[in-house]
Amino acid sequence: MLVTCDCVVEGKHFLPRHFSAAELGCRTMTLNISDIGAMGGRPLYALVSLGLKSNTPVSYVEELYRGFLSELNPLGASIIGGNLTESGGGIFIDVTLIGEVKQGRIIKRSGARAGDAILVTGSPGQSAAGLELLLHSDPQNSFDRHPLVLAYKKPSHRACEGQAISDSGCATAMIDISDGLLGDLGHICRESRVGAQILRQKIPVSEAMVEAASCLGEKPSEMFMKSSDDYELIITCPQDCIGTIRAAVASASDIPVTQIGNITDKHDGIVLIAPDGEQQRIKPSGWDHFSRQ
Amino acid sequence: MLVTCDCVVEGKHFLPRHFSAAELGCRTMTLNISDIGAMGGRPLYALVSLGLKSNTPVSYVEELYRGFLSELNPLGASIIGGNLTESGGGIFIDVTLIGEVKQGRIIKRSGARAGDAILVTGSPGQSAAGLELLLHSDPQNSFDRHPLVLAYKKPSHRACEGQAISDSGCATAMIDISDGLLGDLGHICRESRVGAQILRQKIPVSEAMVEAASCLGEKPSEMFMKSSDDYELIITCPQDCIGTIRAAVASASDIPVTQIGNITDKHDGIVLIAPDGEQQRIKPSGWDHFSRQ
Repeated sequence: MLVTCDCVVEGKHFLPRHFSAAELGCRTMTLNISDIGAMGGRPLYALVSLGLKSNTPVSYVEELYRGFLSELNPLGASIIGGNLTESGGGIFIDVTLIGEVKQGRIIKRSGARAGDAILVTGSPGQSAAGLELLLHSDPQNSFDRHPLVLAYKKPSHRACEGQAISDSGCATAMIDISDGLLGDLGHICRESRVGAQILRQKIPVSEAMVEAASCLGEKPSEMFMKSSDDYELIITCPQDCIGTIRAAVASASDIPVTQIGNITDKHDGIVLIAPDGEQQRIKPSGWDHFSRQ
Repeated sequence: MLVTCDCVVEGKHFLPRHFSAAELGCRTMTLNISDIGAMGGRPLYALVSLGLKSNTPVSYVEELYRGFLSELNPLGASIIGGNLTESGGGIFIDVTLIGEVKQGRIIKRSGARAGDAILVTGSPGQSAAGLELLLHSDPQNSFDRHPLVLAYKKPSHRACEGQAISDSGCATAMIDISDGLLGDLGHICRESRVGAQILRQKIPVSEAMVEAASCLGEKPSEMFMKSSDDYELIITCPQDCIGTIRAAVASASDIPVTQIGNITDKHDGIVLIAPDGEQQRIKPSGWDHFSRQ
């Protein structure tokens, strides 16, 4: 049995002008589903604890629930309870999600071993890039329908892929990258007591990311360095299991799986290697709820 | 397996000036433990989701956790996870508590039958009376050490009594009175599709309540009518099981059990009978999070 809990707060994790209630419901449930999926599990039961404003319309709450259920229903999961209160400030949505994983098939953050391959699904950072585009939107230059903005507003979880990877029995560690590719790789390294070597040119950068980087005046190869806000998976596994992991993911979806580096010894730390061979030592910070940006 | 979820919000459910962090932690965990106990269950695992202010000191959070654990530890339950975020407003504490109950021994709100006795543990309304005293405190007239104020600041759950009642197999319905004696009796009546007849003079009123009523200029017999904020239990059972229920509670603690009335047919509604025989029909309102008081 698995249990996870994540809370989103108005003004801190989302701005209401960027999300319809249904989109907000989808996004909030997706990030909890992702946490269960990243352990190789299947979500079963959600509890939804809402903090609402005194003037939140009932129709808004109904739309939120439509959003929650549109993510849960396809997985056969349901909402079994929760709580309702006035928040005293902005809206908050706190979801506890209960799931299950087959005996002996749970994938933790702590199992990576030196020599393992580091794989990632999809293109990390699309959602965070979408948020940056949104923040740079203006009436003359709206990015509302940009694919990265859609990736931010309605991100995909990889729970089915995570279950297939769990079933393969090959992964040594797994995590979603909600704290950013390097932040979450840092979680694996810390909990597995290992280091990591990442080849920058191997990190998949989508065409949309290249275009967005150009709009935003940034290097596409640096956009994945930030907090990600999306729900791709980092998977570590022995080198001879890469094919099995790819096959497992392919059994669930057509999302690409890319090897971006290898696990090393702990004392090597986390190192990002540029195409010219220059090595940059990374101190992953991840997401700090109390940072003043 | 049982799961419950309850959230307290600064300014709505508590005022920080009334509670130390440890007291707030105790109180918040107590109300969740009470919900598990009121189904006859045993709490096992808590998830704590905190929304904090940017200037909440770490020491405050540590004291909160000491409060949580001081309630969980004696029951053999523990905190297994949770979440931490900045709230954007006041503090909120959202607890999800997972418990277990023996197969076939769960006590719901929906099992009361016409003819059953209605029992209550302790003296309902002590905690709410304590809050009223606190709100009437001033430097000249401090009620800080009044037993009712202590009942408000550190209420007791009846989880061990609830488990003993569950083990007896005799109760038809059970609920805690966090929404008030009549509000929660209303929940039982609605979900069991029954009515209830309550004898006002049978409702146990403690000496402290009589004294508080005199301070506050209210009738002691009306103080239990309000929202209660305490965690006594209402139990319904067949008339010939009252002794068994009393014995079950006595096996857990010396808290008194009082019969305050009987379950009736649904069409009779909920009726409060005064000592002179006058009947007052009750429309239980319970706690409304969005009411403007």
